[in-house]
Amino acid sequence: MKAKVEVFLKPGVLDVQGKAVEGALHTLGWKDVANVRVGRTITFDLDQTDAAKAKAEVEAMCDKLLANTVIESFRVEVG
Amino acid sequence: MKAKVEVFLKPGVLDVQGKAVEGALHTLGWKDVANVRVGRTITFDLDQTDAAKAKAEVEAMCDKLLANTVIESFRVEVG
Repeated sequence: MKAKVEVFLKPGVLDVQGKAVEGALHTLGWKDVANVRVGRTITFDLDQTDAAKAKAEVEAMCDKLLANTVIESFRVEVG
Repeated sequence: MKAKVEVFLKPGVLDVQGKAVEGALHTLGWKDVANVRVGRTITFDLDQTDAAKAKAEVEAMCDKLLANTVIESFRVEVG
């Protein structure tokens, strides 16, 4: 089973990387770009056939390692 | 219109960050995890109502700034 995790900074947290990308896009002429947020995506294979169990397992991985839940939120997809 | 760009290292390129995450997950007991790849996701708003034009514009941004197309591939979603 394939798993995909998207990790983003929570809405209130300043995304300096996003601000830098936004500034660079404006400089390159794309002035209509706004609210840039940069997150990371982690994909992997998992030896688990039950989708619900797989999702619970991946959420545990996020809590323990893949995301810093103080400042980041995550979204899990399995399938 | 919202745009979402996913940037990953191309399949042949060694993903050291992915390897590190895989090792850490194994150490934490998730031995069944394999093929971990870490990429980045960039989301933003765009002042463009035509989906095809928006997609072309975002692909140009990827080529110029958001992805290093020598070693990275990208996927664009708009809507």
